[in-house]
Amino acid sequence: MAVKLSAPTKTELLAVAGIELGIASAGIKTENHPDLVLIKLIDGSTCSAVYTQNVFCAAPVIVAKQHQAAASVQYLLINSGNANAGTGEQGLNAALACCQAVAESAAVESNTVLPFSTGVIGQQLPVEKMAAAIPAAYANLASDQWFEAAHGIMTTDTLAKGLSKQIEIDGQLITVTGIAKGSGMIRPDMATMLSYIATDAAVDQQVLDSILLKAVNQSFNRISVDGDTSTNDACILMATAQAGNKLITDSNSVEAQALYQVIAEVSQILAQAIVRDGEGATKFISVNVQQGASSEECRQVAYTIAHSPLVKTAFFASDPNWGRILAAVGRSGVKDFDLSKVAIYLNDVCIVSAGEPAKDYTEAQGQRVMDQEEITIQVILDRGEAEDTVWTCDFSYDYVKINAEYRT
Amino acid sequence: MAVKLSAPTKTELLAVAGIELGIASAGIKTENHPDLVLIKLIDGSTCSAVYTQNVFCAAPVIVAKQHQAAASVQYLLINSGNANAGTGEQGLNAALACCQAVAESAAVESNTVLPFSTGVIGQQLPVEKMAAAIPAAYANLASDQWFEAAHGIMTTDTLAKGLSKQIEIDGQLITVTGIAKGSGMIRPDMATMLSYIATDAAVDQQVLDSILLKAVNQSFNRISVDGDTSTNDACILMATAQAGNKLITDSNSVEAQALYQVIAEVSQILAQAIVRDGEGATKFISVNVQQGASSEECRQVAYTIAHSPLVKTAFFASDPNWGRILAAVGRSGVKDFDLSKVAIYLNDVCIVSAGEPAKDYTEAQGQRVMDQEEITIQVILDRGEAEDTVWTCDFSYDYVKINAEYRT
Repeated sequence: MAVKLSAPTKTELLAVAGIELGIASAGIKTENHPDLVLIKLIDGSTCSAVYTQNVFCAAPVIVAKQHQAAASVQYLLINSGNANAGTGEQGLNAALACCQAVAESAAVESNTVLPFSTGVIGQQLPVEKMAAAIPAAYANLASDQWFEAAHGIMTTDTLAKGLSKQIEIDGQLITVTGIAKGSGMIRPDMATMLSYIATDAAVDQQVLDSILLKAVNQSFNRISVDGDTSTNDACILMATAQAGNKLITDSNSVEAQALYQVIAEVSQILAQAIVRDGEGATKFISVNVQQGASSEECRQVAYTIAHSPLVKTAFFASDPNWGRILAAVGRSGVKDFDLSKVAIYLNDVCIVSAGEPAKDYTEAQGQRVMDQEEITIQVILDRGEAEDTVWTCDFSYDYVKINAEYRT
Repeated sequence: MAVKLSAPTKTELLAVAGIELGIASAGIKTENHPDLVLIKLIDGSTCSAVYTQNVFCAAPVIVAKQHQAAASVQYLLINSGNANAGTGEQGLNAALACCQAVAESAAVESNTVLPFSTGVIGQQLPVEKMAAAIPAAYANLASDQWFEAAHGIMTTDTLAKGLSKQIEIDGQLITVTGIAKGSGMIRPDMATMLSYIATDAAVDQQVLDSILLKAVNQSFNRISVDGDTSTNDACILMATAQAGNKLITDSNSVEAQALYQVIAEVSQILAQAIVRDGEGATKFISVNVQQGASSEECRQVAYTIAHSPLVKTAFFASDPNWGRILAAVGRSGVKDFDLSKVAIYLNDVCIVSAGEPAKDYTEAQGQRVMDQEEITIQVILDRGEAEDTVWTCDFSYDYVKINAEYRT
């Protein structure tokens, strides 16, 4: 069902010196299914993170934030099948107990472990199953298991998501590898679904933080499947300092910019992969709003279109019912909006010009665009120089089916 | 498919002295189907209206506003099957031509006619078909045709919506009769889908305006099917001064309050009928938020729940997946939100208490509530004294089907 998306092959996901990954089956949702991933960072690594802005954030998010503030990160522990969200005090204790189990296997302090969970909300995490599986994950830690890790973190995803990029910085070959999961409850807000990106570059904490924030804002914070912000979103960027480049300490340096570019590209491809694999998706839709007074208002218009069930069902039906796009623009709430200046395009086809239906538009032109799997909606506001883009998918029977049957 | 809703019978819809209704088939969408309604107001009537806040408002909305400002309203002309929205200059001319056709049949000025359209967006109104049918509607004007009018304004509605109430004011029996249509593209914003309410009371313009605004705010502005605000919403309140009561000129008078109460009740029943007949609806859901710092934040929380596709699909599946409600509350964006004070109920079953899962909650309790057709979600914020309620429905396969196949 995913739109123009294929899973990476094992050889495409390059090892990152200083990162090892271990996989195990804890039997959280089904038996003998990889659902537990352990990631080890070599000593001297830096690690940045952004988390969900949902006030009801999950227990592992609370614990991960506390641990990150207290100590250098040495291990990430991720489980799929159970989000450990809405689980109260018992859920917090469960997350802490899982960190403790890693600490015992690895002989480290438990606050050097960051826990992450994804899956169903409101059920208690089976701590004993987790604790029983952690030694196996620890035992098989290896640098060439990004492919297995990408599978181990999946929930309703139909395909694993990951890629690698390489660039030269400071005369050294730098590798960036990232994996992500996510398919529903997707409307990240200053955060993302679960995504783990690592580089072997040497980068100090402040520069790494700024690269991650900027990259997330241009990728995971620009997608929506259903407008629902998860309780468990997290995006982690790790830098192991194994590549031999001189430590990057200035965000404005050529080296920091080069690293940002490649990390932003990896983030954007992963973010778009989540939309392409959106629950029930049959179309990948870019909503690009131009000539706004601010990026904020461009996003406001773009998200109003991207969240409209009527627009999304019309795309599912390949019906060029552009009146629904127009109605969404009209209700987006932009202040002092001058309708008579607005133009709207579906790919290269103009459907609205100067606020009126384009004179030479024909239904056949609209149909030609709607029959495609990838479509760009472009809205030109003609009131400024700002621009922004969000990515979304259509709304199908299968979205309802997947979410109506999620717990059965 | 409608949830606990039946259409009114012909005898239940009482005539309102001073109002006559005429019906015709213009063949706008299909032949021999009543799709044109003409409403005549007796001389000396007052008429109030609220319209959609969508910037891309439809041609008839623009014309109706202009006509209402220019002259006393004598006729309302309503067609279903075509919204005359997104139709530019040609659409405006079409709306004006329809008013002119009524003016010719009725020998009045054309600016005493308010036009209303509902149906598909972005197609030109077939003016000639409308003009050809208007004389027939004029010829059959009669006071006992509210039932036929309620049917004539339907689009994707599965049932006609209407009711009558009577009260005594100033020693006189006062009748209020209202009809409404609407099923999708429903999230009225300071306006409503098409609704026409009439009373034979004598009420001056200012009092009538204030009664309508207040009633709409407690009814049509509190419902959502899919979060999409229509381009054509309108709610009209007519008062014919035929009941013999003394003209009501003071909004704070006992008479104005009594009239407001009955009109608000009629509005609320009609608004809820739209949700009960929401496209594909199988559940009627009241979202009640209490103890907020302001009504605005109560609505913000309520609408975040009411618009969540994940919450709505869980209700469709009768799945007590309350984690999705909790996640929606958490992302609602209320400032300085203190999670540890929040309580959430499904009908009488407490699911969250003091921000944590309720200790004695069982899945069986949740299932018992979810199996019902009418469910109340109650969220208690414990940060003030404000309260608000919105009404919505679930999200089913049929919503996708209806909207994917709408134009086929």
